[in-house]
Amino acid sequence: MTALSRGWPVPADFAAPPTAAQLIEWESLDRMARPARLARLRARFAEAGIDAYFGVRSEHMRYLTGFRLGPGEDKVAGPSGQFLVGGEEVVVLADSRYTIQVRQEATESRLFEVYHDLPARWAELVGSVGARRVAAEAGFVPHAVWTRLAKAAPDVELVPVEGWVEADRATKEPSELERVAAACAVADRALAALLPRIRAGATEVELALALEWEMRMNGAEALAFDVACLSGAQAALPHGGPRDEPVEDGAVLLFDFGAQVAGYRSDMTRTLFVGEPRERDLAVYELVARSQRAAIHLLEARLAEGAALPTGREADAAARAVIDEDGRWPAYGHGLGHGIGLATHEGPTLGRSPSSDATLPPRTVFSVEPGIYLDGETGVRIEDLVSVDTGAGRLERLTRFPSSVIVVGG
Amino acid sequence: MTALSRGWPVPADFAAPPTAAQLIEWESLDRMARPARLARLRARFAEAGIDAYFGVRSEHMRYLTGFRLGPGEDKVAGPSGQFLVGGEEVVVLADSRYTIQVRQEATESRLFEVYHDLPARWAELVGSVGARRVAAEAGFVPHAVWTRLAKAAPDVELVPVEGWVEADRATKEPSELERVAAACAVADRALAALLPRIRAGATEVELALALEWEMRMNGAEALAFDVACLSGAQAALPHGGPRDEPVEDGAVLLFDFGAQVAGYRSDMTRTLFVGEPRERDLAVYELVARSQRAAIHLLEARLAEGAALPTGREADAAARAVIDEDGRWPAYGHGLGHGIGLATHEGPTLGRSPSSDATLPPRTVFSVEPGIYLDGETGVRIEDLVSVDTGAGRLERLTRFPSSVIVVGG
Repeated sequence: MTALSRGWPVPADFAAPPTAAQLIEWESLDRMARPARLARLRARFAEAGIDAYFGVRSEHMRYLTGFRLGPGEDKVAGPSGQFLVGGEEVVVLADSRYTIQVRQEATESRLFEVYHDLPARWAELVGSVGARRVAAEAGFVPHAVWTRLAKAAPDVELVPVEGWVEADRATKEPSELERVAAACAVADRALAALLPRIRAGATEVELALALEWEMRMNGAEALAFDVACLSGAQAALPHGGPRDEPVEDGAVLLFDFGAQVAGYRSDMTRTLFVGEPRERDLAVYELVARSQRAAIHLLEARLAEGAALPTGREADAAARAVIDEDGRWPAYGHGLGHGIGLATHEGPTLGRSPSSDATLPPRTVFSVEPGIYLDGETGVRIEDLVSVDTGAGRLERLTRFPSSVIVVGG
Repeated sequence: MTALSRGWPVPADFAAPPTAAQLIEWESLDRMARPARLARLRARFAEAGIDAYFGVRSEHMRYLTGFRLGPGEDKVAGPSGQFLVGGEEVVVLADSRYTIQVRQEATESRLFEVYHDLPARWAELVGSVGARRVAAEAGFVPHAVWTRLAKAAPDVELVPVEGWVEADRATKEPSELERVAAACAVADRALAALLPRIRAGATEVELALALEWEMRMNGAEALAFDVACLSGAQAALPHGGPRDEPVEDGAVLLFDFGAQVAGYRSDMTRTLFVGEPRERDLAVYELVARSQRAAIHLLEARLAEGAALPTGREADAAARAVIDEDGRWPAYGHGLGHGIGLATHEGPTLGRSPSSDATLPPRTVFSVEPGIYLDGETGVRIEDLVSVDTGAGRLERLTRFPSSVIVVGG
C-alpha cells in the first residue's frame, strides 16, 4: 500500500543544475565520442553498397557533427546543418547565417557554403568526398528535394535509408545518460518548487506556465515539450493541452513535462491529488503504481540473472497484466514507454507494435508510463525514466521525484 | 533627426490582449472563410488535371480544416491532421489520440481514423472522395512516405505540387490581419513592460526570458519564435541566440521577438541603447531608420497613386539604396522582409531572390527590417510589420512600439 506522503519533496532533495564546468566537460566528451559514432555509421557502408551518407535530421546533426539547431529552427535553417559523411571526412552545409556557428561547433567537419542551389551543387558536393552512391534519410528528405537532387546529378545514385542513426542512438554513452539524468533533476526540482503553490482555483494554464518557468529559470535550456497540466476528467485524455479552467477541489492533477539540459531531455508524469482524494482515484493510482513496479521488477530480475533484457513487448505486457488481472478498469491504450535522448521520443519502443519485438539495448534509457483513463471521470499516469546497463548489471530510476500519493492544496 | 525619446512607451499605450469573446469571434470568422479558401484551392484542380489534394503542412491543416497542431507537435502527431481535399468534401486523418480534437475543431470535415497503416489504406481513402489523381505537398511529404503511397496504390496517381496553399495564404483576410495586429500589440506591451527593468549587468539570457514571460503572461498563447537578445558586437549576428553574458554599459541591445495570438504571429526588432549611446551607434541607427522609412514611403506613394504595389525586389532596393548611397557602412545581407501569418516566415518575399519579383499581394502583411551589421563592433536592425490593402488604399504599421532612439538602464 502506497502511504500518503507525510513530507513533500523539496528542491534541495534533487541534484543541482549542472555547473558551467560540467557543460564544458560534456561538450568535450561529445567531441571525443564522435569518431566512434561515425565509425558505427560507416560500418554500414560496405553492406549497403554506398560510399556516403546524407543526413538532414537535426538530432543527427548534433550527434554526428556537433552542430546544433534549436527546436523549430530546422524549419527556417534551409540546408544549414545538413551533412554528408564520406569514407574519410564529414562535410556540413551552411548558408551565411550559420557559417560561423558551423566553424565553432562542428569542429571536425569541413564547411560547404550553399544556399537554395543545393541541387545544382550536389554533384560537386558528393564528388568532393569521392562518393557516387549516397544513402539519404528518406524519412526526412522531402520528396521534392529528393527528386531535384536525383535529376540534377544523374551520375549520383541516391539510396533511401531509414533508421540507421536512430538505431545507433538508442544505445547511450555514459555521458548521454548523465545529461538525461541532469534533465530529470531539473524537472524534479521544478515540481518540488511548485507543490506548495498549487491550490484549487488556479487554472491549468497558470500551473503549466509556473512549472515551465521553474524549469527554465533553474537549469533547463529549453523544454523537452510543452507542459501538459490536466485536472479531473481532463486527465483521461492521453493527449491534451492545459485549459483556462480552474482546478477543482478533490480532483486529480496530472503534470506531464520534461526539461532539456545540454541537448538531452527528460520526460516525467506525476498525478497529484488536490484536496481530499476520492477513494476511487486512490485505488486507480495504487493500481497504476503496481503496474509500473511490475515492469521495473521484470527488468531488475533479468539484470540480476545476468540474462538479456526483455523485449519492449515483454516489459509492456508485464505492466499491462497487472491492470488486466485486477479487472476493474481498462489498461492504457498507448505503449508502456519510449527511449529518450536528443529527441523526446526515440528508440527503444516498449509497447505492442512490431518495433517492440527487439530486445532492449544493453545501455539505454526509456520511460515507463502506465496509466488508467476513465473517460469523462478521471485519469492517472505515472511516468519515470529508467536507465539500464547490462554490463554493470544496473537499473537506475533517473526521475527521483517520489511516486507515492501526494496531496496538495491543503 | 530622430529625437532621443523623452518618455518611454508604457504597456497601456498599446491595445489590450483580445477578450474571450474576440477569440470566439475569430474562430467563427475562420469557419465562415473556409469554404472560400477551399474553393480557391479547388479552382486549381482542373488546370492541373487532378481531383484531390493531399496536405500535410500544419499551417495548411488549420487554414483549410480548422484542426490545430501546436508548434513541434507535428513531429509526434503521426498522420493526425493530414487531410485530403476532394471535389466535394474534406477528410481529416487522425489516430485515437486526436479523434476527439478533429471532431471538435475540423467541424466541416469527415474523420478518417488511421495509424501507421496509411499506405495500406491510401487507395480506400482516395477512393472515398472519388479521386484518382491526387496532388500532394511534395515539399513536405518525406520521400519514403511518398514511395510507400505510390507503391501501395499503383492506380492512384500522385502529382507533386508545391506552393499552392502558400500562395493563397499570402493574401490575408481582414480577420487574419486583426490577429497579426493583436499579436503585435502583445509584443509591444511586453517590451514596454520590460524597459524599466533593463540594466547593464543583466545577462542576455535573463532579458530574453523576462521578455518571453511578459508576452506569455499577457496574451501570447505561444511565442512566434525564440526571443533573440543580442548586445554589443553580438548584435552584428543576423542569427544568434542569447548568451549567459552581461550586457555592457554603452552597448546596443537588440531584441528580435514575436507573439502568437489565435494562431497568428508577430515579429519585431528593436535596437535599444544601454547607457550613454556611442556616436557611431546613433549614426548607424539613424541610417537604418531612414532606410526603413524609404521602403515604407515607396509603398505609401504607390497606394496614394492607386497604382499596383511594388515588387518585393523594388521595396528592398528602396531601403538598400539609402544605405548604399550613404556609403559609410554596408547594407544588410539578408532580405528586407517576409510575409507573416500562421507561420513566422511566409509569402510574400521582399529581397533579391527570384521569389521577390512578384508584385506584392493586394491585401497582405510583411516585415520591413533593414539592418547594418559591423562585424565585431555593433549591429542595428529595426523591424516592423506593415499591412497594406490596395482596395482601401491603406498602409498600416501593426507594430506600434516607437522606433525612435530609446536609451535604457539609466
